[in-house]
Amino acid sequence: MTPTNRKLRKDALAILRAALKAADPVEAVARHLSVDGHSLHVGRQRYSLEMFQRVFVIGAGKASAAMAVAVERALGRRIHSGLINVKYGHVARLRRIELNECGHPVPDEAGVAGSRRLAAMVDGAGEGDLVICLVSGGGSALMPAPAEPITLAEKQETTRLLLACGATIHEINTIRKHVSSLKGGQLARAAYPATVVTLILSDVIGDNLDVIGSGPTAPDSSTFSAALAILRKYAILDRVPPAVRERLEQGLEGRIAETPKPGAKELSRTQNVIVGSNRLAVAAAKKHASSLGYRALVLSTAIQGETRDIAGMHAAIAREVRDSGQPLRAPACIISGGETTVTLRGQGKGGRNQEFALAAAIEIEGLRDIVLLSAGTDGNDGPTDAAGALCDGQTVARATAAGLNAAAFLADNNSYAYFDAIGDLIRTGPTNTNVMDVRLALIGK
Amino acid sequence: MTPTNRKLRKDALAILRAALKAADPVEAVARHLSVDGHSLHVGRQRYSLEMFQRVFVIGAGKASAAMAVAVERALGRRIHSGLINVKYGHVARLRRIELNECGHPVPDEAGVAGSRRLAAMVDGAGEGDLVICLVSGGGSALMPAPAEPITLAEKQETTRLLLACGATIHEINTIRKHVSSLKGGQLARAAYPATVVTLILSDVIGDNLDVIGSGPTAPDSSTFSAALAILRKYAILDRVPPAVRERLEQGLEGRIAETPKPGAKELSRTQNVIVGSNRLAVAAAKKHASSLGYRALVLSTAIQGETRDIAGMHAAIAREVRDSGQPLRAPACIISGGETTVTLRGQGKGGRNQEFALAAAIEIEGLRDIVLLSAGTDGNDGPTDAAGALCDGQTVARATAAGLNAAAFLADNNSYAYFDAIGDLIRTGPTNTNVMDVRLALIGK
Repeated sequence: MTPTNRKLRKDALAILRAALKAADPVEAVARHLSVDGHSLHVGRQRYSLEMFQRVFVIGAGKASAAMAVAVERALGRRIHSGLINVKYGHVARLRRIELNECGHPVPDEAGVAGSRRLAAMVDGAGEGDLVICLVSGGGSALMPAPAEPITLAEKQETTRLLLACGATIHEINTIRKHVSSLKGGQLARAAYPATVVTLILSDVIGDNLDVIGSGPTAPDSSTFSAALAILRKYAILDRVPPAVRERLEQGLEGRIAETPKPGAKELSRTQNVIVGSNRLAVAAAKKHASSLGYRALVLSTAIQGETRDIAGMHAAIAREVRDSGQPLRAPACIISGGETTVTLRGQGKGGRNQEFALAAAIEIEGLRDIVLLSAGTDGNDGPTDAAGALCDGQTVARATAAGLNAAAFLADNNSYAYFDAIGDLIRTGPTNTNVMDVRLALIGK
Repeated sequence: MTPTNRKLRKDALAILRAALKAADPVEAVARHLSVDGHSLHVGRQRYSLEMFQRVFVIGAGKASAAMAVAVERALGRRIHSGLINVKYGHVARLRRIELNECGHPVPDEAGVAGSRRLAAMVDGAGEGDLVICLVSGGGSALMPAPAEPITLAEKQETTRLLLACGATIHEINTIRKHVSSLKGGQLARAAYPATVVTLILSDVIGDNLDVIGSGPTAPDSSTFSAALAILRKYAILDRVPPAVRERLEQGLEGRIAETPKPGAKELSRTQNVIVGSNRLAVAAAKKHASSLGYRALVLSTAIQGETRDIAGMHAAIAREVRDSGQPLRAPACIISGGETTVTLRGQGKGGRNQEFALAAAIEIEGLRDIVLLSAGTDGNDGPTDAAGALCDGQTVARATAAGLNAAAFLADNNSYAYFDAIGDLIRTGPTNTNVMDVRLALIGK
């Protein structure tokens, strides 16, 4: 390995670490919530803790237990009580906040029971109380609250029907919010007139507040009318459970309250703050790359699409830096986020990030002083124990010398075995967070 | 259509025109070759025309007739004579330079005859003569010169065998250069000790001089030994025509001269100048975008891959400009070049550029103040009379209102009909040039 490639690899891993640090749930919350004397700082707002009689901490999500650790560190005994729905096994050591383990990605009755208790807790909060709500990826499935008399089974059947007829995620969310009692801002309404501060770890592209965890404290623009129109569009109005249809029709007639709309009074005491996201992780990567002397450029945090083609485009940009100093001159660090997909063609083992690195390795074969890296921030790329992998222009030659044919491994989606054999997997262990993926291309001078 | 989108569309088309202008063969040559009194300026070099007894103009390529027009304009009666192999019908009005129409993409005997005459012309050129060589896309097929006693049919049979066993274009070129008498720098050797100035319109990614038109005046790093190794690798040494095998073996034994290597004396009087290329077209686009007040960024001129995924990545970058002001703040113009591919899934009519615009339209649906455009610089996108198409965030809604379903048209690769119906095709007519594609994303403030 050339000295430059060794340096680029070391820097790439350090830049990745900076991104992971920004996405760490404890660090992310601590960075956005702090106590200073009697002042509680949340994002750019300041609250006087003397104003609050009680502080409740609630929430749901795979990372919410870790987020709660940071809240306990900041507020300690000022917390009156709390309850958070987490995925089975996704726990943390907490003193004052209770954890309720429940089903994910398929919600279960333990989740429903926990959601009822959450709702009762915020329902009991008054004007002098503060509710801190912690939302992270998986928060929607982990806070199942079918609106009575709809049952969890009926809600799930509705989702199944929508998926089967090709409804978009946006359409499914519109229905979900209108057959639920907490989604779409309804949790914030239940807490009103208490003050609500929601800390959010976003795992979706675009960081839309009404999408992450189905937006329990965010205004909702969708309506009962839109929900019914979707069922009609797919001709499943007669096939959804009668209780679902009845609720939507009652809502249309104004007999059930709409979800809180933008500007609603019930949301006037609610602050939503994104404490962690792909964009924040990528920003941390950029900052660290700059500190290491690289010109750094963020391409986009919204990148989706077939992994090998996206890898090709990253490689083409790295090559252009080398050839013409565009889009910026070396030493350069090109950063992107989002989450790609892999169309399975083979029988091998891998994940989108490892496949990215393998496809990129082929594209940059023979080029000097270029390193590409891709890693999932959750530490688990596909069904593997690696977060991702990295490659340089000599990776293919090095692997060929070890008897590995890059094209054949790519055709078999067997990126894990490829990088495992040459020692270029990135292993972080589970990170307890998820803000999608981070990709880096470093081009040396 | 919103006023901003109307403005963005108008600007996008103007920026495309600037790119096409830079790729126009006449303009491209005129920009790099000019006469000032007795001085001939070619790129950064200056030649005294008084030094030359005769000026010959030769060449091959689809755009080479148009390039010759510019040379005649500059040098007029100083041209002694000339001969250029062009594709049937790809002619121009010339006074002193003869055009020889021949077969492309499959070479024919007319091409072989023309190449022999070309070779004889430069062979007769001496130390006091200047040979201007015009090379453009298609130049390899249009200058077929099988080394005797190999026949054109035997050379083609060899290429066919190589293609069938999956040889790379790089490997095929190595063989081609070693069974040809002009490729791989051998034309320049034939002209030596005359001065040779080669003007090149590049249609390949990377603009490698030894690749464009098989590099008739560029140094060649490949060898007879490498050529034989390739035939052995694919186990076709016994299957290629005996004359081909014999030549390669004689070459290996040193009984036939190698192609001129980098630093060879026979190339010491040769200047290769790229007068037009994707990079130059993209640079012109960038310059024009800046003049219109956009912050402009070139992503890469080496972009390949599946069109719809590449479109998605462009849309994701445009969205990021909108959302976070990265990789640069609006008003922004993101530019890329290269040539993507389309995996045909449907029965519709279209081309990679129109499919890019259709896939992009779906990705940016509903977004404000974003326009994307993709166009082939040759004016013919796929088997259509359009160069490409453009779209904005309201394209899908507008087409839906006209009864067109974007996803269905994309699934059917039917982008031509889609954009034809809503009037968003870009029609330039044939441009007589080809420097691959130009893609633009404009994001308004």
